[in-house]
Amino acid sequence: MMEAAANIRLPGSAPYEYPIFIQESYAGLAQILRERPGKLFVISQKGLESVLDLFFRESGVPRDRLYLIEQGEENKHLNQLGEVYNWLIQSGIDRSSSIIAPGGGVVGDFAGFVASTILRGVPFIQIPTTLLASVDSSVGGKVAVNADFGKNMVGSFYHPAFVYCNVSVFSTLPEDEWSCGFAEIVKHSFLEETSRDLNYLEQNVQNIRKPEILSLVIRDNVRFKASIVSQDEKEAGLRSILNLGHTTAHALESITHYKKFSHGQAVSRGLVTALLLSEKTGLSATDRERMLSLMQKLALPLDTAGFGAAELLEHMKFDKKNTGGQIRFVLLEKPGKPVFGIPITAEEFENAWSAQKRLFG
Amino acid sequence: MMEAAANIRLPGSAPYEYPIFIQESYAGLAQILRERPGKLFVISQKGLESVLDLFFRESGVPRDRLYLIEQGEENKHLNQLGEVYNWLIQSGIDRSSSIIAPGGGVVGDFAGFVASTILRGVPFIQIPTTLLASVDSSVGGKVAVNADFGKNMVGSFYHPAFVYCNVSVFSTLPEDEWSCGFAEIVKHSFLEETSRDLNYLEQNVQNIRKPEILSLVIRDNVRFKASIVSQDEKEAGLRSILNLGHTTAHALESITHYKKFSHGQAVSRGLVTALLLSEKTGLSATDRERMLSLMQKLALPLDTAGFGAAELLEHMKFDKKNTGGQIRFVLLEKPGKPVFGIPITAEEFENAWSAQKRLFG
Repeated sequence: MMEAAANIRLPGSAPYEYPIFIQESYAGLAQILRERPGKLFVISQKGLESVLDLFFRESGVPRDRLYLIEQGEENKHLNQLGEVYNWLIQSGIDRSSSIIAPGGGVVGDFAGFVASTILRGVPFIQIPTTLLASVDSSVGGKVAVNADFGKNMVGSFYHPAFVYCNVSVFSTLPEDEWSCGFAEIVKHSFLEETSRDLNYLEQNVQNIRKPEILSLVIRDNVRFKASIVSQDEKEAGLRSILNLGHTTAHALESITHYKKFSHGQAVSRGLVTALLLSEKTGLSATDRERMLSLMQKLALPLDTAGFGAAELLEHMKFDKKNTGGQIRFVLLEKPGKPVFGIPITAEEFENAWSAQKRLFG
Repeated sequence: MMEAAANIRLPGSAPYEYPIFIQESYAGLAQILRERPGKLFVISQKGLESVLDLFFRESGVPRDRLYLIEQGEENKHLNQLGEVYNWLIQSGIDRSSSIIAPGGGVVGDFAGFVASTILRGVPFIQIPTTLLASVDSSVGGKVAVNADFGKNMVGSFYHPAFVYCNVSVFSTLPEDEWSCGFAEIVKHSFLEETSRDLNYLEQNVQNIRKPEILSLVIRDNVRFKASIVSQDEKEAGLRSILNLGHTTAHALESITHYKKFSHGQAVSRGLVTALLLSEKTGLSATDRERMLSLMQKLALPLDTAGFGAAELLEHMKFDKKNTGGQIRFVLLEKPGKPVFGIPITAEEFENAWSAQKRLFG
């Protein structure tokens, strides 16, 4: 079997340890799947036809057990589950079967939840086809569907048997998808303890889309996220540092009903707010400028998008991650030294948001 | 806090270790719940009004967050989930909330699955109100709902925060519910290594419904099942000994579309078949007669209920626990010494079934 770029070890029993393969085609998948018994079921999404053609052709996975959910986040809904479960049962799924999920975060979340619950759990094979899914949802085991009144309200913690990522398919991604990935990648580099990842990004920012560079960046991101998740799988504390930039981002998404911004576009703007607020926790102006400069070189959106502080604050109050009505942020003391659960007053947020507007519009 | 009758320790991290309280009222629950933060949500079932009245009155749990599913196993269906999830979200569930499930196996399975998936899992408090649920589903962490094409096809492994069992409510159970519980209880006693539980049952069979005797019997059953499950949570091997009597039972249930027999009535008859087949694995006639005699004293049904071996064999082929079309049984070498995965030919089954018909009709 080919060597994995990263072996993810999470606490607990055997299922929480899995390899992540980062390759430049799907050919290697054929070799790995040959060693798995049982039927293979593929769950993906409409609109991914060209990457699916490549996936089936190169991996040799049979095309005859394929289920496609409709396009769009709104179809990652619990009312879509019944049909998939019935399809799996009627197609003869048993405990030796595996569910393969080629796609982005929506497919991974949805198919992962199905895999975690059908027959009380069958092996789940994640094939991220976006940069964001590769560096984010491929590690952490969070799977979920939406309910009528909330995103990701129904879900579980369930880890894949393995992750296989083909970086060659990213070249066809629209610019917006690249931004989504880069926003998470810079976020991880701001959090990583030694700033080794941050340094690497700064040195390679001009060539970051080259497969050989991108492979290493993904590997580092995956390793970093795994090290955090392995210390706090169920998000009791440390894992919440991964929410750097997300307090503002969730408010921007909520205010626009998740329609105007991609998650990355919202997180990117939220990272700027967090960097500005981090003056409170001692982040130096030099470090802040260094990080903002990297974001600019990656063409990430840094502006306030025309929203006012007051309306954002209104939405922050309802974030499920806030407790007791107090708005809390993840901030930085310096690169690689995050602090979480920092209470922020309305006035402090207003000041940071005004500064962001002055700087970036 | 009051002392638990059994502390269940299962492998893995903290959530897999939980106390089981066996009491003669719900008053003790008030004390335990006082130490839990967060909102309490109660999920139960129509038809349980009188036990629910007692539960709310004695425990002091507020009645204002109560959801009742319709009566009957058929409402433990995945198409009932959306409404419950939406109710929980609209009622303001958060990660500090707990879901309490007073009821039998149907309520425990359904509410447990909801608890395991809402917000990726909130604490689940199991209040078994039947003898069967107390000795069976209170240990093991199997929760599930039915799909259109199969029972318990969608589920997870999820352990309660604690189990609280009030034996005083069993006195109102119909005879059929007692049988269900006794069938599991004798099954456990046939499997338990030292035969201490089997001896205790034989000595106390006349007084078994007395709360003080019943409490001890439940405690022993729970301890026994926990010891098995803790060695094999995901049913990879040893746990399958708990399927003693179930190969025939599942066929009887399947052939009658789960309408004619309660699970206990089917298991009881299946235990007889397994005892008769166990001649193959060396079970002595003396031991077999001893076990059958206990079952008779508990008024358990031992007959073939008018079904023929051929039709049962037809249904056994489709049991999801069989692999490769081979019919397999859990059998006994002697009391307390089960063996699992024993292949049985059609002829062997036909002979045992004929013997059962000759003996018990």
